[in-house]
Amino acid sequence: MKKRSKKSGLPPGSLVHIGEKKTEEVKITIIDYDETHFQEKAAKTIDECYSFKDKPTVTWINVEGIHQVEILEKLGECYGLHPLIMEDILNTDQRPKMEDFGEYIYIVLKMLDYTDKTGEIVTEQISLILGLNFVISFQEGIKGDVFNPIRERIRSEKSRIRKMGADYLTYSLLDAIVDNYFIILEKLGEKIELVEEELVSNPMPETLRIIHNLKREMIFLRKSVWPLREVISGLERGESSLFQKTTGIYLRDVYDHTIQVIDTIETFRDMLSGMLDIYLSSISNRLNAVMKVLTIIATIFMPLTFIAGLYGMNFKYMPELSWPWGYPLALFIMLVIGISMLFYFKKKRWL
Amino acid sequence: MKKRSKKSGLPPGSLVHIGEKKTEEVKITIIDYDETHFQEKAAKTIDECYSFKDKPTVTWINVEGIHQVEILEKLGECYGLHPLIMEDILNTDQRPKMEDFGEYIYIVLKMLDYTDKTGEIVTEQISLILGLNFVISFQEGIKGDVFNPIRERIRSEKSRIRKMGADYLTYSLLDAIVDNYFIILEKLGEKIELVEEELVSNPMPETLRIIHNLKREMIFLRKSVWPLREVISGLERGESSLFQKTTGIYLRDVYDHTIQVIDTIETFRDMLSGMLDIYLSSISNRLNAVMKVLTIIATIFMPLTFIAGLYGMNFKYMPELSWPWGYPLALFIMLVIGISMLFYFKKKRWL
Amino acid sequence: MKKRSKKSGLPPGSLVHIGEKKTEEVKITIIDYDETHFQEKAAKTIDECYSFKDKPTVTWINVEGIHQVEILEKLGECYGLHPLIMEDILNTDQRPKMEDFGEYIYIVLKMLDYTDKTGEIVTEQISLILGLNFVISFQEGIKGDVFNPIRERIRSEKSRIRKMGADYLTYSLLDAIVDNYFIILEKLGEKIELVEEELVSNPMPETLRIIHNLKREMIFLRKSVWPLREVISGLERGESSLFQKTTGIYLRDVYDHTIQVIDTIETFRDMLSGMLDIYLSSISNRLNAVMKVLTIIATIFMPLTFIAGLYGMNFKYMPELSWPWGYPLALFIMLVIGISMLFYFKKKRWL
Amino acid sequence: MKKRSKKSGLPPGSLVHIGEKKTEEVKITIIDYDETHFQEKAAKTIDECYSFKDKPTVTWINVEGIHQVEILEKLGECYGLHPLIMEDILNTDQRPKMEDFGEYIYIVLKMLDYTDKTGEIVTEQISLILGLNFVISFQEGIKGDVFNPIRERIRSEKSRIRKMGADYLTYSLLDAIVDNYFIILEKLGEKIELVEEELVSNPMPETLRIIHNLKREMIFLRKSVWPLREVISGLERGESSLFQKTTGIYLRDVYDHTIQVIDTIETFRDMLSGMLDIYLSSISNRLNAVMKVLTIIATIFMPLTFIAGLYGMNFKYMPELSWPWGYPLALFIMLVIGISMLFYFKKKRWL
Amino acid sequence: MKKRSKKSGLPPGSLVHIGEKKTEEVKITIIDYDETHFQEKAAKTIDECYSFKDKPTVTWINVEGIHQVEILEKLGECYGLHPLIMEDILNTDQRPKMEDFGEYIYIVLKMLDYTDKTGEIVTEQISLILGLNFVISFQEGIKGDVFNPIRERIRSEKSRIRKMGADYLTYSLLDAIVDNYFIILEKLGEKIELVEEELVSNPMPETLRIIHNLKREMIFLRKSVWPLREVISGLERGESSLFQKTTGIYLRDVYDHTIQVIDTIETFRDMLSGMLDIYLSSISNRLNAVMKVLTIIATIFMPLTFIAGLYGMNFKYMPELSWPWGYPLALFIMLVIGISMLFYFKKKRWL
Repeated sequence: MKKRSKKSGLPPGSLVHIGEKKTEEVKITIIDYDETHFQEKAAKTIDECYSFKDKPTVTWINVEGIHQVEILEKLGECYGLHPLIMEDILNTDQRPKMEDFGEYIYIVLKMLDYTDKTGEIVTEQISLILGLNFVISFQEGIKGDVFNPIRERIRSEKSRIRKMGADYLTYSLLDAIVDNYFIILEKLGEKIELVEEELVSNPMPETLRIIHNLKREMIFLRKSVWPLREVISGLERGESSLFQKTTGIYLRDVYDHTIQVIDTIETFRDMLSGMLDIYLSSISNRLNAVMKVLTIIATIFMPLTFIAGLYGMNFKYMPELSWPWGYPLALFIMLVIGISMLFYFKKKRWL
Repeated sequence: MKKRSKKSGLPPGSLVHIGEKKTEEVKITIIDYDETHFQEKAAKTIDECYSFKDKPTVTWINVEGIHQVEILEKLGECYGLHPLIMEDILNTDQRPKMEDFGEYIYIVLKMLDYTDKTGEIVTEQISLILGLNFVISFQEGIKGDVFNPIRERIRSEKSRIRKMGADYLTYSLLDAIVDNYFIILEKLGEKIELVEEELVSNPMPETLRIIHNLKREMIFLRKSVWPLREVISGLERGESSLFQKTTGIYLRDVYDHTIQVIDTIETFRDMLSGMLDIYLSSISNRLNAVMKVLTIIATIFMPLTFIAGLYGMNFKYMPELSWPWGYPLALFIMLVIGISMLFYFKKKRWL
Repeated sequence: MKKRSKKSGLPPGSLVHIGEKKTEEVKITIIDYDETHFQEKAAKTIDECYSFKDKPTVTWINVEGIHQVEILEKLGECYGLHPLIMEDILNTDQRPKMEDFGEYIYIVLKMLDYTDKTGEIVTEQISLILGLNFVISFQEGIKGDVFNPIRERIRSEKSRIRKMGADYLTYSLLDAIVDNYFIILEKLGEKIELVEEELVSNPMPETLRIIHNLKREMIFLRKSVWPLREVISGLERGESSLFQKTTGIYLRDVYDHTIQVIDTIETFRDMLSGMLDIYLSSISNRLNAVMKVLTIIATIFMPLTFIAGLYGMNFKYMPELSWPWGYPLALFIMLVIGISMLFYFKKKRWL
Repeated sequence: MKKRSKKSGLPPGSLVHIGEKKTEEVKITIIDYDETHFQEKAAKTIDECYSFKDKPTVTWINVEGIHQVEILEKLGECYGLHPLIMEDILNTDQRPKMEDFGEYIYIVLKMLDYTDKTGEIVTEQISLILGLNFVISFQEGIKGDVFNPIRERIRSEKSRIRKMGADYLTYSLLDAIVDNYFIILEKLGEKIELVEEELVSNPMPETLRIIHNLKREMIFLRKSVWPLREVISGLERGESSLFQKTTGIYLRDVYDHTIQVIDTIETFRDMLSGMLDIYLSSISNRLNAVMKVLTIIATIFMPLTFIAGLYGMNFKYMPELSWPWGYPLALFIMLVIGISMLFYFKKKRWL
Repeated sequence: MKKRSKKSGLPPGSLVHIGEKKTEEVKITIIDYDETHFQEKAAKTIDECYSFKDKPTVTWINVEGIHQVEILEKLGECYGLHPLIMEDILNTDQRPKMEDFGEYIYIVLKMLDYTDKTGEIVTEQISLILGLNFVISFQEGIKGDVFNPIRERIRSEKSRIRKMGADYLTYSLLDAIVDNYFIILEKLGEKIELVEEELVSNPMPETLRIIHNLKREMIFLRKSVWPLREVISGLERGESSLFQKTTGIYLRDVYDHTIQVIDTIETFRDMLSGMLDIYLSSISNRLNAVMKVLTIIATIFMPLTFIAGLYGMNFKYMPELSWPWGYPLALFIMLVIGISMLFYFKKKRWL
């Protein structure tokens, strides 16, 4: 959990970075393009962004790393952003939401990354600000980025993105993030299948732990993705003039994908619940098996041991002891008892 | 799970087939009819479809097999379909949805097939495009097809379908698919009844596995059918001018059937949950039975073995040992203990 | 489950009877009345109904047995009913619904009957068609009928029903059916109470089966009654001109009863869930009791048997064996061990 | 359950009392007041009520005991009440509801009473009819009444109630009933706390039964209170002209209280569910404890008994038996085994 | 639970303090400010508040301790507050709500405090009354107050709060309370993590108790925070003219925080449910482990003891006894049995 308590008592709009610092240096890249023109540069200071503000071309400013509060402050002032937005960008425990400020739209959502080594899902908060002819995106700055294919497309002069406005760029960024969810889900799906096979072949307490962890990841994913549904449906309903009608159809596509992601998460949750049931009943089954072995052994040997004990008594007058056939008879009786017990268990299907 | 990851990073509208190839060859059949006229042909190339485009008659183009992307591309261009639709047709992990593009309506839903051998439900994605005087249907190309009866009806000159337009044909296709769900549900219902009987007569770990698999199939079915409800209700509300008012009443009928399918799935889910409870408690009951046997045996023989052990001690001065009635008395005491134990268990209803 | 598969592939509106034939002969009774006039007759052929069609009096045609498709066909033609309605009447697995066709309203719902012998709930589909001055009711034809009191009231000249129109007759039929649900629920309530007492006094695996069956009946009842709520609320909202305002207040009464039935079903479901919990924990409790007996016996006798075994060893040099007080001392030690064990269990509240 | 079956088949509006007779005599009290004037009398016959009908003062007729159908009939005629209302008053298994008949409003709800001796909640149905200047209240006639404080207030000339109309009186009655729910909930809350303490100190099968009974009472309470929410919100929305605007603010207060009652019921339900979990796991824990004792005893004494048995064998050639240190050595080995077992259990934290 | 029963039977608007007295003395502080002017004083009597009533500056009257009813009465009269509000302020078991009386808005909500020593959450009811240029806040008077940072900000002349009206002050108070929830949640989150670690390393009955207590605290928190969502959304929708448009954006921020708090509570609830599952299955696992030890010991030593018992019998004619190799052979057989048993358990993976 992010430590909100750091901020307790501060006035609203106070810019304090909440969350761990995920990158050393803040990296700012500016891409400026229209159908014919293209410019890409890595800004050293935030001041380089100012000149792009009033250009008619589409400007995409991507800020990686948000722990240097003063950079955000300057950028916010330049583009006239509300202090509460700046505060939200810095608080990395936001739930996905969309806010329409008329002149610009603020969107916050989560980018997910699955680290193969630890099998953990890492989350990164992405803030997008869409204005008339600019998009500003803020990332926490984890290595690896799903925006590269979009950069590639912008660089290529013939791509559709070059012909469209800032709203289409925003859509492209959203689409890239949502598409990435599918990859995470695929990996989790594979993991679930693996655990399921293990559950059938050899369930162990360890299996339970993995199921439990997967369940927690589902809770976490759900929390990250569920509100996105409303965000995109809000954008799609087209109440903002910043989104053109032709982009609406693309947003509907992203919306469908989001629903599909949520659906899959729900399905996984149902599956994991079912697996928990199987795990618990397999424990009971094994207890049953163990107890049957114990009962069979005890039921066979207790009567036999009793008989043996009987003829181990030291009474003076025990006629059987001196019969010549006493010993074989005792052995025979024991055999009969043992075999009839086995038959009894066979009949009860315990063997 | 279908591998969405194949597509990650591609621009929207990129046509990539997601899912397994279910047929070798792409088969295109064209049926063109009105009240008096009927023509059916198997198209060798997609170009044969072009000539039907502007005819006033109803044209039904059925494409089986969607892995040859260029065929879809051409068809899409000819009928002026949006690239995002073409993309959706190729992604076979769509959830059922309906999109109204004004000039045409795009419907995607799932056809189900139950393979008797493996007992598995196979799903096939069906995409329908309804225009003013044409219907294009895309199937993944699994053997076996629920559309044959419709073809039969079209061939017969007197059938109602010949008098109606493309919207009625669309309805007929939807109806055929939903009717087919009932057959799947009947088969699953029979399977559930079988398992239930087994549960009563002789529950085994295997039974649990079957219940679990049925439950998963219910989750899967639910996911495939649930959104269909909204799809058809959307069509029925008649916001599109492509659907005539007289067809509305038929759509209401399909809608009722869909609700019934969903109802049945929910009932099955409830039943399976109940069966799981029974299974788990039957395991507990059996553990109880096993433990009772063990306890009865132990409780009877432990005291007896102790008494036998007592008189097996080698103390020099044990007066009982030399009594002439010592042995019979010991036997008698053992008998009394054994019988009183049995009475005790009888009273406790363990026997 | 009714076999829908019989119909698969047939065009919509095909009249095929789905469900078991519940009566041999189809019985048609016609009751025609207004405030002053009354006529009742059993029609031998369906043609006798035709003459009543355009009379201003209220005509109630009751058809028992729906397996003779041609009778329905004729009736449908005479009264101008839509083929899809005729199809729905024949499919006895409909969920309750109401459809307003303008000139007439089609209502389908379930009549329930509790057979005391088997303790099973039998369902019968009732279809009602309300026109301006006629009501047609279709029953599957099970013996026993909740409509008799209504017939009695119509026969009596002073009853309110004689002064009212076809809409009031429809209400009376609905009311009779819903009132009958209360009787079913009372019987189920008594059964539940019986099982609950059994659960307290002597729970057995058989008890679980009964709880499970009751639960299934609740699922079934719920499915039959739940949609009725919407049906009647739809009628009550009075969108159809066939229902007069004064009848609305009566419909509201039936609506309240339906809600009450649904409430009771939900309460029963909750109670049955609670009973399942009690049953399962009573199994666990009994296992506990069994295990305590075993543990007490084993814990007392195992040490004693060990001591007895100790002095049953045949070592040459065992000084205790030749002590004159050896045997009494051994007995005394055993007694002390046994009693202290009993005290231990007393303290642990196992006794 | 109330026996609805008594009424089956009767025409709507038939006045039959459903429920047990809760008082011998029907008691009718009339309170008539306005700001300056006050009159209170116990009516011997229902005819005494007639004279109050058209007075401009507020008249409150309270009828205790509803089993004398003819009294209700006369009252209903005098005030022009709909027969269905009269029927509802007599059916004591109504769920809370409100019906607006224009000239008067009919409200039915439940008064609860907690009998300290049996710990059971007794329910009494209260029907209220609010007209322009009269309120008629019907009680089943259980001893004890939450309306007395209201009577006191009416008697005092300075109270607010004397200055207000019949709607404020209705509000006061509702408020008294809902306030009474809090007392019931407080008592149940205390009971739950008691059970919870018992659960921690010494859970017994009896505890489960109490939890289960409390759960059932919650289901029952929920059913009685939940619909009240809608009733009062319906009144508050002020669609009826019988309720003045100034009374609306008071109704909102009752509404808040109702929500609070529902909230508390839900919280209690959650708490009881949690207690069930604790109970079940405490059973499992105790089984674990029992089994550990058994296992420890068996694991220590079985090897020891075996060794003792070994040297109890009667083979001729057993060199150990004649060793002078044989016996002490055997004892020493047994001691070592026993102690090492204890260490093993210590390590496993079983001791 | 607060004792509502104290008030039963009193007329509405009766001022009775419900809840425990949390402070000795009632402390009243008045802060009066506008952009240029600032005054702060501790009022000795309530009369000192009167003079601030009609000032155009923003007046904030903070009352700590609500058990002196007459103080509230006077304040209520001075500011013309409705008696029902005064009653609500005194009833400390209110659920959060907002009521708009036109001239002023009444808001009631809960302040939470986590006492580190006992680990309990203490709740304090805060009532806020927002008028055109005044805010009155009522606290129960627990030590420790989240309002201090706000006071600091008001004292500083340059802060935004000095430039804004009473609505912004109200927002600031709400924000401070909601921000404080995050701190409570952080502490609970840490506690949950601790318990989870304990659950993995060494689950004990004590662990269950802690999980259960955390669950109850979640139920409690949920009840306190859930209705706040509606309260703030009601304020934000801006139906009251007391809230200016510019403050709306800040309320939306508080609203987002409330949603986040609710989200986190739900996540914690899900996590605790998962932990309960793990706890229960870990008990079962341990039972399994215990039973395996018992079964292994019994299965190995029972046959061995039987064989030893066999050759402890005193039959005269037992040829094996006099064989010279009898004893070693018997030992060898025992060894073989023991080792083969061990192999069997190895194969079954019990060892």
